[in-house]
Order: sequence, then C-alpha cells, then structure tokens
Amino acid sequence: MIDFRSDTVTKPTEAMRKASYEAEVGDDVYGEDPTVNKLEDKAADTLGKEAALFVTSGTQGNQIAVLTHCQPGNEIILEENAHIFLYEGAAISAFAGVQPRTIAGEKGAMNPGDIKAAIRAEDVHFPETGLICLENTHNKAGGAVLSLEYMKEIYSIAQSSQVPVHLDGARLFNAAAASGVPVSEFAAYTDTVQICLSKGLGAPVGSIIAGSREFIEQARKWRKRLGGGLRQAGIVAAPGLVALEEMTERLVEDHEHAKLLAERLANIEGMTIENEVETNIVLVNIKGTNANVETFLDSMKSAGILAGSFGPYTIRFVTHYGVTKKDIETATEKIQKLVQS
Amino acid sequence: MIDFRSDTVTKPTEAMRKASYEAEVGDDVYGEDPTVNKLEDKAADTLGKEAALFVTSGTQGNQIAVLTHCQPGNEIILEENAHIFLYEGAAISAFAGVQPRTIAGEKGAMNPGDIKAAIRAEDVHFPETGLICLENTHNKAGGAVLSLEYMKEIYSIAQSSQVPVHLDGARLFNAAAASGVPVSEFAAYTDTVQICLSKGLGAPVGSIIAGSREFIEQARKWRKRLGGGLRQAGIVAAPGLVALEEMTERLVEDHEHAKLLAERLANIEGMTIENEVETNIVLVNIKGTNANVETFLDSMKSAGILAGSFGPYTIRFVTHYGVTKKDIETATEKIQKLVQS
Amino acid sequence: MIDFRSDTVTKPTEAMRKASYEAEVGDDVYGEDPTVNKLEDKAADTLGKEAALFVTSGTQGNQIAVLTHCQPGNEIILEENAHIFLYEGAAISAFAGVQPRTIAGEKGAMNPGDIKAAIRAEDVHFPETGLICLENTHNKAGGAVLSLEYMKEIYSIAQSSQVPVHLDGARLFNAAAASGVPVSEFAAYTDTVQICLSKGLGAPVGSIIAGSREFIEQARKWRKRLGGGLRQAGIVAAPGLVALEEMTERLVEDHEHAKLLAERLANIEGMTIENEVETNIVLVNIKGTNANVETFLDSMKSAGILAGSFGPYTIRFVTHYGVTKKDIETATEKIQKLVQS
Amino acid sequence: MIDFRSDTVTKPTEAMRKASYEAEVGDDVYGEDPTVNKLEDKAADTLGKEAALFVTSGTQGNQIAVLTHCQPGNEIILEENAHIFLYEGAAISAFAGVQPRTIAGEKGAMNPGDIKAAIRAEDVHFPETGLICLENTHNKAGGAVLSLEYMKEIYSIAQSSQVPVHLDGARLFNAAAASGVPVSEFAAYTDTVQICLSKGLGAPVGSIIAGSREFIEQARKWRKRLGGGLRQAGIVAAPGLVALEEMTERLVEDHEHAKLLAERLANIEGMTIENEVETNIVLVNIKGTNANVETFLDSMKSAGILAGSFGPYTIRFVTHYGVTKKDIETATEKIQKLVQS
Repeated sequence: MIDFRSDTVTKPTEAMRKASYEAEVGDDVYGEDPTVNKLEDKAADTLGKEAALFVTSGTQGNQIAVLTHCQPGNEIILEENAHIFLYEGAAISAFAGVQPRTIAGEKGAMNPGDIKAAIRAEDVHFPETGLICLENTHNKAGGAVLSLEYMKEIYSIAQSSQVPVHLDGARLFNAAAASGVPVSEFAAYTDTVQICLSKGLGAPVGSIIAGSREFIEQARKWRKRLGGGLRQAGIVAAPGLVALEEMTERLVEDHEHAKLLAERLANIEGMTIENEVETNIVLVNIKGTNANVETFLDSMKSAGILAGSFGPYTIRFVTHYGVTKKDIETATEKIQKLVQS
Repeated sequence: MIDFRSDTVTKPTEAMRKASYEAEVGDDVYGEDPTVNKLEDKAADTLGKEAALFVTSGTQGNQIAVLTHCQPGNEIILEENAHIFLYEGAAISAFAGVQPRTIAGEKGAMNPGDIKAAIRAEDVHFPETGLICLENTHNKAGGAVLSLEYMKEIYSIAQSSQVPVHLDGARLFNAAAASGVPVSEFAAYTDTVQICLSKGLGAPVGSIIAGSREFIEQARKWRKRLGGGLRQAGIVAAPGLVALEEMTERLVEDHEHAKLLAERLANIEGMTIENEVETNIVLVNIKGTNANVETFLDSMKSAGILAGSFGPYTIRFVTHYGVTKKDIETATEKIQKLVQS
Repeated sequence: MIDFRSDTVTKPTEAMRKASYEAEVGDDVYGEDPTVNKLEDKAADTLGKEAALFVTSGTQGNQIAVLTHCQPGNEIILEENAHIFLYEGAAISAFAGVQPRTIAGEKGAMNPGDIKAAIRAEDVHFPETGLICLENTHNKAGGAVLSLEYMKEIYSIAQSSQVPVHLDGARLFNAAAASGVPVSEFAAYTDTVQICLSKGLGAPVGSIIAGSREFIEQARKWRKRLGGGLRQAGIVAAPGLVALEEMTERLVEDHEHAKLLAERLANIEGMTIENEVETNIVLVNIKGTNANVETFLDSMKSAGILAGSFGPYTIRFVTHYGVTKKDIETATEKIQKLVQS
Repeated sequence: MIDFRSDTVTKPTEAMRKASYEAEVGDDVYGEDPTVNKLEDKAADTLGKEAALFVTSGTQGNQIAVLTHCQPGNEIILEENAHIFLYEGAAISAFAGVQPRTIAGEKGAMNPGDIKAAIRAEDVHFPETGLICLENTHNKAGGAVLSLEYMKEIYSIAQSSQVPVHLDGARLFNAAAASGVPVSEFAAYTDTVQICLSKGLGAPVGSIIAGSREFIEQARKWRKRLGGGLRQAGIVAAPGLVALEEMTERLVEDHEHAKLLAERLANIEGMTIENEVETNIVLVNIKGTNANVETFLDSMKSAGILAGSFGPYTIRFVTHYGVTKKDIETATEKIQKLVQS
C-alpha cells in the first residue's frame, strides 16, 4: 500500500525505536523523567520560548492553549477551516467554554482587517475576545504557509488589543522547510505555539506546547486534568527527540514529492489541482473525471493506493517519509489507468 | 426625547400596570401562580405548542433552548449575525458547552444548501450537530422576515438529519404582522420557539419559550439553574398577558412608521437605507454625510433624538408604540437640519 | 389554608403593589431604570458594600457569585447542607465548572479547623480553592444564626489564604432580627453577599448581590449571560424597595411566632423539635407519632395546613407575615387532633 | 534510592522495552494499530466487558467515564477520599459539569444506606444522580479492598435506581491478588471499570477503560476531545500487554513486602500503622516520634529512602516490583536509626 492519507501514518524509524528502547526514564508526574525533560528543553530552545511541555497530541496541545489563555464566556478568533474549529470535537466549547468566531481566509490566512473588526469592544452583551489562533501550515488550505510578515502583522494587531496569539503549528516545520524561515522566527510572533512530533517528523506519539514559563506551569495543570500527565513518558519522548534532531530537514524532500505528485496528477484528464502546492499536501479536484470521490477512493485502494476525501470533489494526498519518489510514479500511473478505465 | 434605540425601551401601558396591580399571584416555583399559568397556557395556545414557560428574557429563553436540546461538544448552526451568537456573551459555549457553526445569510436567511453541508457526519473528530437556530425577524438584518416557505424548507432539512430547530422569535409577532401569517404557522416549522413579551409588545419584563410538554419540563429545570425560577411572578406575567392579548395587532402601525421614517431619511442628502424595511427596523448608512457615527448620534441626542450605532457607517432606528407619526416627522426634520449644518 | 411551607409563599403587600403600579421605569439593560438604580443604591448602602445588583432570585445571585469569583477547575468550600450545594441543581458545576468541597457543620457552622484543613495547597493534582460560602441563617439547620464572631473568624482564615468569602444571606435579615446585629456588620466579614427580597421580606420577585464595584461590574455580565438582564425592571424593583424599607423590622414577629409554634408542637405527644428555634423555622420530628411524613402532611393539608417534608421523620414549618398568631393557635390545635386520631 | 513514594515510579521491565521496540504499529486514530487493538481485546476479555479503550492515564480513564455516563448538572456519588474527588483537579466539574456528592467511608467503603439516601429524587431544585463511583483498592484508605459482596450490594442499589456504577480500579489487580477474586468478577458488578497498566503492573504509560461496546464508542470520542487519541500507540500499548500478561500474579509479593514493612515499622518506637495492610500500601503514623512529617521525609531521603506525606502525621509507603525484601530490611533499619537519633 502507498499511503497518502496523512503524514500521521508515518511509522517510527529504527533510530526512534532504538532511542525508546534505551531511554532513561522516571516518573514525569514528579518531573523526574530525564528524557522528557531533555525533550522539553530542546523544544523550548528550538522554538525560542522559555518553556515547553510534552503533550500526547496536537489536539491536546491546542486545547491546553485555549484552556490556559481563556476564561469561559470568551470568544476566540480563528480561520473558518482551522483544525481547532473543524476537527477537535467542539472541545474548545465543551471544556474551555469559549465561542469560536470564525473568519473566512485565503490560503488559510484571515484578512487582518477582518480580525481587527472581529475583536470585541467592551459591552455587557459581548463575550471578551480571549485569543487569536493561527494555523501554519494550514491543513485545510492544502498545506499553505502563512508568511512571517503576515504573522508579524497579526501579532501586532493582537498586541495592540491585548489579545494573546496561539499558533497551531502541527506542521510548522513544513512551513519552515518551505520558506527557509526557522520555526523560532515564526514562533516569535505568537504567545504560544503547538508543534507535532508525529506527522511529518515521524515520531509515533506526541506534540509540544511552548510559551512563557508561567504559561507552561498553568498548562501543566490543565494537562493533568485532561489525563495527559504520563508516568515513564521517556519511552515516547525519546523518539520525539529523534524527530526534532533528525527529521526536520528532510521535509523538503516531502515537498518536492508533493510537487511532483501534483504535476503528474494535473496531467491526468479530468483532474485539477486546487491548491498551490507549497508543502506536503496536494488537493486534487476530480470533478472532470465524472467519478464519485468515495468510489474513486475505493478503486484506488484496490490498486494499492490510499488517500482521503476532502470535499464533494476533492481528494487530499499527503506526502511523508513513508512515500518515495518511486511510490509517486507508481501511484500516478495507476491513477491514470483508473481514470481511463 | 424621541427614542429609536430599540423597541426594548417601551414602557408598560396603563392596562399593563393595572393588570400587574390586580394580578392574582402564588409561588411559581411550586407552580401555583395562577397568572403565570394563564400566561403560559395562552402563549402555548397562541404558538400552537403543547406547553410554554415564562422566562425573564429572550436571552434566557434562547439559552434554555440550547441547554435543553444539546449536549456539551455539540455544534449548533446559526446565521453569522444571529443574536444568540453576537449578543449573548458566548453563553451557549460557557454554559451549554456547544460550538456555534455560523453561516453567512442573506436578509438573515442562511442558504439551505449551506445548512445541509454544515450538518456533520459521524466521525471521531467531529462534534455532533445538535441544533439549528433561526431568527425571525432577524435583528441584525434590519428586521427581515423569514418566509414561511423558507422555514418549512429548513425544517425539512433538519428533520431528515434528525436535528431539532429552535426559533429565536424575539420579534416573531413583527414577522406575523408584516406577512399576515400567524405566529403559530411559523412555529409549526420549529421544535421550540422563543418570543419576547417586551420589545414591540411592550411588556416590562419577560419572554416565553414553547415546545413539547417533555421539552418544557426539562427546560423548567434549566431555568431554575439559571436563577429564572421566580416566586410571585404573576406581577410580571400579568402585563405579559396584556401584551399577548392587546399589543400584537398594533405592530402594523410600527411598520408603517418605519417605512415612513425610511422614506424621509432616504431623502436626506448623504443618507441611504441599507435594508428593505419590512418591519420596525431601519438601517441608515450615513457615509455620504461624511459624519462619524458616534459624533452624529451625539448631535442627534442633543437634538432630542436617540438611535443606535450598528456598524462603522450605520445607524439603527427602531419604531415602537412609544414613537408616533408626529415623532417621526419631528425627528426627520431635525436630522435633516443636523446634516445640513 | 395556613401555609407554613416556606416564607417564599408570601404575597406582595398593598404597599408593594402600589409601588409597582406607580414605579418610574426605564430600560435597565441600558442602566436607565431609576427604580432599579434606587434599589441597588439602597441595598449597597444597607449592606455596607460599594455596589449592588438586582437579580431575579437567590439562586441567580449565588450562581453569579460563584461564576464571578471562580475559575473552572476550582474547588469551593461549603457546609454539606448548604442551599448552594443541595438545592441549586448542581449549577455551580454545570455553569461555573467548580467542585464543591462539603464539610459537615453544627447548626450550619463548619468547624474553622475543618475549613483550614480543606483549603488546598498548590499541587498539580489539586484544584485551587476558589471560594468559601457561608449561609446565614442556615435553612437546612433550621434557620440557625451564624454569629458575628464566627463569621469574623472564618473571614480571617479565608483572607490569610487569599480565598474570597461569599455569604448566601437569603435570610440574612432574619439573622439580623434575631441577633440585633445589622446586616452590614455580618456583610463586613464577606467579600460578597446575596440577600433575598422575597422570602421573609415579602417582595414578589428578586434578590440582591452586593460587593466591590469591580465585582459588580463583572457580575452584571454574568447576569446577562444567565438571562437576568431585565428591561423595565422597576416594576419588580419597586416592591423590593418597599421590602427593604418596611419589612425588615417586623421579622422579630415571625420569630416569636416560630417559638410559639415550637412550644405548642412540643407539647403534642410524639412530636419533638429538632432545632433550637432562633428565627422563623421549626423542624418537627414526628417519629414518636408513628405517622409517616407524607401521609401526615396530606392529613394536615385536608385540615387546611401546609408544611413541608424535610427528612424521613421531619416536617419543616416556616413562619412569615402571611401567618398570624391566631393561625398558629388554630394550626396547632388541628395538628393535635390529627395526632390523637 | 529505595523508592516507596508510589507504585507509579516503577520502570518498564526489559520484556516491556523489548515488546515496545518490536511492536507492530499503525495509526490508532484510524483504528489501525494492531498492538493497541490486541491490548484492548485482551483487556476487555480479562475484565469480562464487551469492549475496552486504551487511555493515557487513570485520570483520563476516570474523566472519560464521567463524561460518557453523565450530563452537566448531574451529581455523582463517591467516597470523600476518592481519587476522582481529591486528586483530579476538579476536572469532573470543569469538564463534565457534574457535582460530586461525597460520603465518608470506612476502609474506603461508603455505607450502602448512605448511598441510598444520597440518590436524588426528582425535583426542580435537585441535580439528577448520574453515577456512583467506587475505588478498589482504595488508595487513601491505605489500599483497602472492597469485597465482592460489597460491590454486589452497591450495584444492586444502583440498578434499582437506574444509576450506573463506575469502578476506579487503578489498583484492581491488587484487590484481585489480595482476595483471590479475578478482576472480571469485581468488574461484573460495575457498568464501567478503569484499570492502570502502570502502577503495580509496571507499564510505563497507560490505562484501560472497559464497558459495553456502545459506551466505548462514545468514550472514544471523549478521548479524542481530551487529546488522548494517539497515532502509533502500539509503542506504549506493547508494554501494557506485557503488564497484563506477565505482571499481575507477582503482586502478591508486593503485598507480602508491605506486610513485612508494616511489621517492622510497627516495632519502631513512636510509630504506629494506621491501616490494615491488605495490599501494597502502608500508612505509618509518626506522631509518637515527635518528628515532623516533612522533616522526617527529608531525613529519610538523605538516608536513601523515599516515601510520601499523607496527612499531618502520616507517611505513605508503597511497595512495588522495584522494591525487594532486602530493600525493606535496609530501609526499616535506617528508619529505626533515624528515629533513635
């Protein structure tokens, strides 16, 4: 099977398995797991933040950010296709009691003027704006990169209204690889940032949330309430360290693969590429083939190719280190045959 | 002062005060206030629902609807300028733990296709769609009426997905007066409906939430938790009864006044009317006068006229029984002078 | 019917009805109801607090206190039979997200040492102690008065741990009448206090929550979220003013009536009084009569007397201005006959 | 260091590390991790339940149980020293919106009559009783075992009131080892059960929640909201499988060690044992030594022994597979010397 469904399907590398096997561990609820501590220090350093916390998933990192930044009855501003809004089970409302204020974006970027207009004035009828969330790269927008200039502008708007900014950077290393801007520069224009060690970086489990020391102290308690306080967590932190140390630079390869994939798919009659392929995501519109998305995905599966439905006519392909250049050639050939038949 | 700020400023009529003075009362927490019981029966009957509950405000009625229909982690669909979303302090998220899924509407009406697309499939990442909320008339859309056909269509979509529909009918009697369709017909295409006894109907305090007997039984408990269980509530229910009995038909007069107001304001240089005036709300764009909204409202106030800011260039005027035809003539003459000077 | 069920059944006096009929009103959401403003000023003054807010019930006042003082994930300390814990539908957890830490009290008073021990240290496993709630008089403890010395001691413990104190003073005027201590002195040892205008004071609807100006400003927003922002609320505030001005001193009469009632019931074979009757509540244990509480209440009802079940062998009688000395004589004679037959 | 602080400090065995290293993995959010699936099947089978779910901690398992069983505004009954109440950051109230109703127990067991009395009748003032939680063994009661008969009795009470029962079985295998009753027999008298793979069983990370298939399906979604949906979770599930397969029977050894420890500590002047040592926890009262708990723990630490504070005069010792018989002899000799000096 060639699996384009998501970069979440990446399996731990041999180096990761070995690191886990040999990891020095302790009880992390007591702060005594040396591997976790090393990972958190490394992550804080990489992201240019005072402190970092290991969490079990990107969703957990995002939820902790909202719980720590906000009060119930607050409103948070985010792009209408943000992962936090679309794919986290309304947990921001269920747990943190905050209301999302969504804004339609272009390539994942909300218009700065729209953000300004959405920040609430003080009024007895209004929730207080508690947080602005950005997502970089933006999954639903096809892995689009928010530029450093854009992030700077939003941060400046936020600061002038004393509203904190959280970055859902589940794929921030892809943004860095695509733009040549280090993750710490992106993170400099946010109060907190969440990055995933799984996805493109290939660790089996885990994400990082980073921010000020005070923020992370409070975040630690929310993590405990969510059940994210682990014991000998070094066993999963160790592969996370390998991910940070060895896996970030190779993401450019995934991006090249995605571009190659897009080119080849664009050549297939009836298929068009919906997104500008900046990173490792390709959104293919199959309307012109007259095929139904679910049926077509089934045919692909029979041919040994997995991808995901992403709209009534859209299929999402994600490249990752489990997909080789050869895989892309094989896959696109097979897809071409499927379309022809 | 001629007060166009809102129909919420209406003061109780002499008949209402008298009714309150003479009201037979009891402890409504025990269900023993005869006047409350009479009002609830009358309201249920008028709205064509099995049962009704007296609540202290439209916000309380809407919140009880969300709390009773939904579970935390649900998503509710509503128009992006709905009162429940914009003006209720994010209470739907703070108390009921639900996430609003807003859809841009036209004249307050969301596109049926957009609603269909917004209803969530079952997936571990997704909230469950717990409720669709409509608002008729739609305040932010300038008192626009949702047609019976539209409501029927939405209800049919909702039912086929087993999602309940709640109607924020704070000004439903205005929709009825404007369209000639009785409120019960509108309410027939909803599971629950909230109507305000204050606003256009002039009662000093209170709203009604109506639905099935089972729903109202549960709603009663949520009302208690919200602190809306009153004691000798007949004192406020009595004017509410007068509102239902005597004040609904006269709303056509408010609508005529609004049309007159709109005509006269449209004749003032630099002023344009933003909404089709269907009921008692007029949205005036003053951009062409080069005046600033806040400054202009201050000048109006000095001239004895109150209205409200409703956007960067927009002023909202609301007509109600405290505003006469003569008031409209006086007010528009004064406003003309203000623009000229 | 002689109604001993609760002082909540008191009906508005003629003076109250008249005050309501004549009340000057305005839109209180805009802060423009002069009668509400007068009531809030009067209440703040009487309670010795900077500011006060009119709310629709004691439950609403208590919930607003918890919502304003606390954060989700906090713990609040209260007596195990506190009204906030037993009778408010778990709203403190449903809305404010706080966990009650209950302590068994004596005559409604928790042991100061127990309170000290219950205040949480900082630990990643622990909720933060967000509030201590007292109840004076204490309903479930039979209208017991918490002494000024006791309140002072608790407040001192609370302050040394930087935990605020809220007083559920639904019947604080009864405590004042019984002890001769003005309500403002009790309130001096709390951060916030809630008093009911209905219950013994006889107003048809409403309570007051009082505290610092900053607290009340935030409370106003929580009141709006709960749906407690009313329009021409003067109509109910006016009787509330009468309650504060004319009805507090007469509570001593209710207390005398309660003592008389207790004496006479104590003389009935098989009946014992469970509480020291300090205010207007009498708890009668009927175990010795071999009667079942529900059956006995039914017989009393047939004889024209209403009271309430308060435990497997306990009936609660509450005196109020709707019950005269003659009523007590009549009622106790009838009850004696019921026991004998 | 001899570490008696908790059985949570146990480090993964070589077999566990090897199992993790070799684990076949997949994306568990897609249900494709074969090792996780195997662990969940094995756990369901062992516990005699239809289905099971791997979660990242005991706290997460307990919170998911409360979220899945209850609605906001519910009340849950638990022992006043239950872990869910004392050590989970009030998350039951912060997230699930439920109010704990605590009952003082004896050896961790609430009186059945008290439970019956605590189940709420239907009343507009009352929360609905949504869940009864038991804890077996009971940590705060010194590892006390709830007998099968007791659990049966409570389950019968619960069922007759249609209230579900959840068992916090973080140390249920200790109860099984001590009583000779298989965990599935205990679990038969509950609707859901949570067991820890870490603690005595020694896995580095993770717990299991088990119940009906329908329950687990809903639980899966709450796990996702909490951020407990992992990717290649086989890496931590593999050691969990080893824990279930190889580590349960050896718990009797920990219990023998605990008894030995208790005997030896009881012989030290000034020390008394507070609990009947049934499993792996020893609560030592040091009041008679005139030492302060914190100071004494510091001295122990200097002597190479770790244990935990558990009250003003109480130190908790927990035995586990990281503590040998020799360690106990060494430790008690050193402690004796500390007391003497």
